[in-house]
Amino acid sequence: MTDPNSSPTLSLACDLIARASVTPEDAGCQALMTQRLERIGFRVEHLRFGEVDNFWAVRGNAGPILVFAGHTDVVPTGPETQWQHPPFEPQVIEGMLCGRGAADMKGSLAAMVVACEQFVAQHPDHSGRIGFLITSDEEGPADNGTVKVVEWLQSQGEPIDWCIVGEPSSTNKLGDVIKNGRRGSLGAELTVHGVQGHVAYPHLADNPIHALAPALAELAATQWDQGNDFFPATSFQVSNIQAGTGATNVIPGKAHVVFNFRFSTEVTEQQLRERTEAIFARHRLKYDILWKLSGQPFLTAKGSLVEAVVKAVQETTGTLPELSTSGGTSDGRFIAPTGAQVVELGPVNATIHKVDERISAQDLELLTQCYQKVLENLLT
Amino acid sequence: MTDPNSSPTLSLACDLIARASVTPEDAGCQALMTQRLERIGFRVEHLRFGEVDNFWAVRGNAGPILVFAGHTDVVPTGPETQWQHPPFEPQVIEGMLCGRGAADMKGSLAAMVVACEQFVAQHPDHSGRIGFLITSDEEGPADNGTVKVVEWLQSQGEPIDWCIVGEPSSTNKLGDVIKNGRRGSLGAELTVHGVQGHVAYPHLADNPIHALAPALAELAATQWDQGNDFFPATSFQVSNIQAGTGATNVIPGKAHVVFNFRFSTEVTEQQLRERTEAIFARHRLKYDILWKLSGQPFLTAKGSLVEAVVKAVQETTGTLPELSTSGGTSDGRFIAPTGAQVVELGPVNATIHKVDERISAQDLELLTQCYQKVLENLLT
Repeated sequence: MTDPNSSPTLSLACDLIARASVTPEDAGCQALMTQRLERIGFRVEHLRFGEVDNFWAVRGNAGPILVFAGHTDVVPTGPETQWQHPPFEPQVIEGMLCGRGAADMKGSLAAMVVACEQFVAQHPDHSGRIGFLITSDEEGPADNGTVKVVEWLQSQGEPIDWCIVGEPSSTNKLGDVIKNGRRGSLGAELTVHGVQGHVAYPHLADNPIHALAPALAELAATQWDQGNDFFPATSFQVSNIQAGTGATNVIPGKAHVVFNFRFSTEVTEQQLRERTEAIFARHRLKYDILWKLSGQPFLTAKGSLVEAVVKAVQETTGTLPELSTSGGTSDGRFIAPTGAQVVELGPVNATIHKVDERISAQDLELLTQCYQKVLENLLT
Repeated sequence: MTDPNSSPTLSLACDLIARASVTPEDAGCQALMTQRLERIGFRVEHLRFGEVDNFWAVRGNAGPILVFAGHTDVVPTGPETQWQHPPFEPQVIEGMLCGRGAADMKGSLAAMVVACEQFVAQHPDHSGRIGFLITSDEEGPADNGTVKVVEWLQSQGEPIDWCIVGEPSSTNKLGDVIKNGRRGSLGAELTVHGVQGHVAYPHLADNPIHALAPALAELAATQWDQGNDFFPATSFQVSNIQAGTGATNVIPGKAHVVFNFRFSTEVTEQQLRERTEAIFARHRLKYDILWKLSGQPFLTAKGSLVEAVVKAVQETTGTLPELSTSGGTSDGRFIAPTGAQVVELGPVNATIHKVDERISAQDLELLTQCYQKVLENLLT
């Protein structure tokens, strides 16, 4: 087993993993981080909203700000007996640091703090400012986390210029993929109304499944857009459908459907809603619908942040990272709308949310170097 | 309140209703009937299959046989507190005999027995033979009822020439509709196979709902046949559909559908199966299907039985009955395939399977007369 003390990033990652911060618990992780940051000159604001701990920290007095954003909370472990090692007792086995949160995203948090420590040691009078925006409510409802901190920042007249989110963006090796945007997510709960009856008397009933089927077929076959250079085409998926009493001779009175769009910047939420409801109208559905927007799409096209991150990754790993907007949502969706440039750069995501979550100890060092080089690229 | 003793049919109907024969219980109803039938010269075979009581009774020695078919079991009452009167304590209120089974079909059973008593009294040496085929498993699975009795009759080399089923065929007034056939019923349980995944990564999943929707739309829009002079067009109905884990971000791995055909004599079961599966193939569904044939369609076109029944009804009620093949299944589906002519003639079906089931006391008398006239038309 590797000696954690041989690496400050590995050592801090272990200390964070040992704090069992299952969402929305912080379990002392933020205190550990803020102690380290205060020691190198950060000013810290502890921002507790509801039952959620968050903090905002800044070093420097003026000029553009590069913010490291992330979360201390982790998803539940599932049955601990399925883990090869206890999930909150971090261990390095065959070069891999194992434990819940190792990849998502306590490894990134440790790399951010250590990168700042090393950068500040070399550049105590760096230009601009460095910030941290840390929540313990990213894996949960995310109502009292980054959303609230961003609102607070706006109320303080504190814009963010550049933001690196430490989410595990990499696919096969560290830095092979960085995310410079995310698709939007628009969900809906649909209820189609019919008239219940006996299958032997269909003329007295109105089968909502029969009304629904061609509308669903059209939704599933629709090309919503072609995507663009940054986004894949918008995708429609039904996640749930239910109708019927269980009896085989009863035509149901209602049908329930849950569906979701992951959408590009080529369409708007409003257009998706209108086009969907136009399809329902064309098929003469009688329906109720409850729309829920989980996040607008955002994109940080080429610019100073993307340039700085790509250069840092390439210098550190020797590989040119792919810019991607695929995958699920992250707290970047709350930060980007303020006008910030936002890039996600973090470890390989193969084991996140699974048992035996882990990160390569070597990647922790590379990630620390990447973050440090971004600081150098933007603030010196 | 009308005195039940004033009418032998009403009196026997009350005695039958008072025996709480919830399917598959007979509760002594058949003993009551067979005692009466033996008294007028019927020979009775008690045929118990599994836990189900059935009987077969014959009067006469040679010649064509007119069989009265029916069931002594009734559907459950539902919450008895919702009934205006206890469901197994028959009462005549404002000219209506109330109680579970009054219309479906203890009223008919009483009318059949009394019609035979009156007919035999007048025609002790009638031509041909009279039969009774009575089960207590019509409202339940119907596995050990009429099906088994018909098999037993065939093993005895005992064909049925004419059969009157006492199911409540009438719509608004007694005898306004008689059923000279029934549509077939073909059910299916379909499972469509896809690949489960995350809605954010649809290219790694295969949504079975999306595959299913256009196939269902085509099934619902298909005109299977045009029906004919005797049958309405074949009808397809989905009764149940289910897919999804409940989570809104998971593409389900499977979708389940239950559907049913009510079909005319213009298509066969085999054709419906083949045409359905051809639609699935055209839409490239990966699926399993379990077909279940509940009954072949049958039709008793104009002939001696229909003629005798129509004449009896018209003479008794003054109205020409409509010949219909609509509505649900009955045990006629098991008798008709033996080659028998089968007609359903019974009371108004407005209250069957509901609380406060009832039959007009006057209709009991009219029904008794109808049955008696059919006996006269065919066996004298």
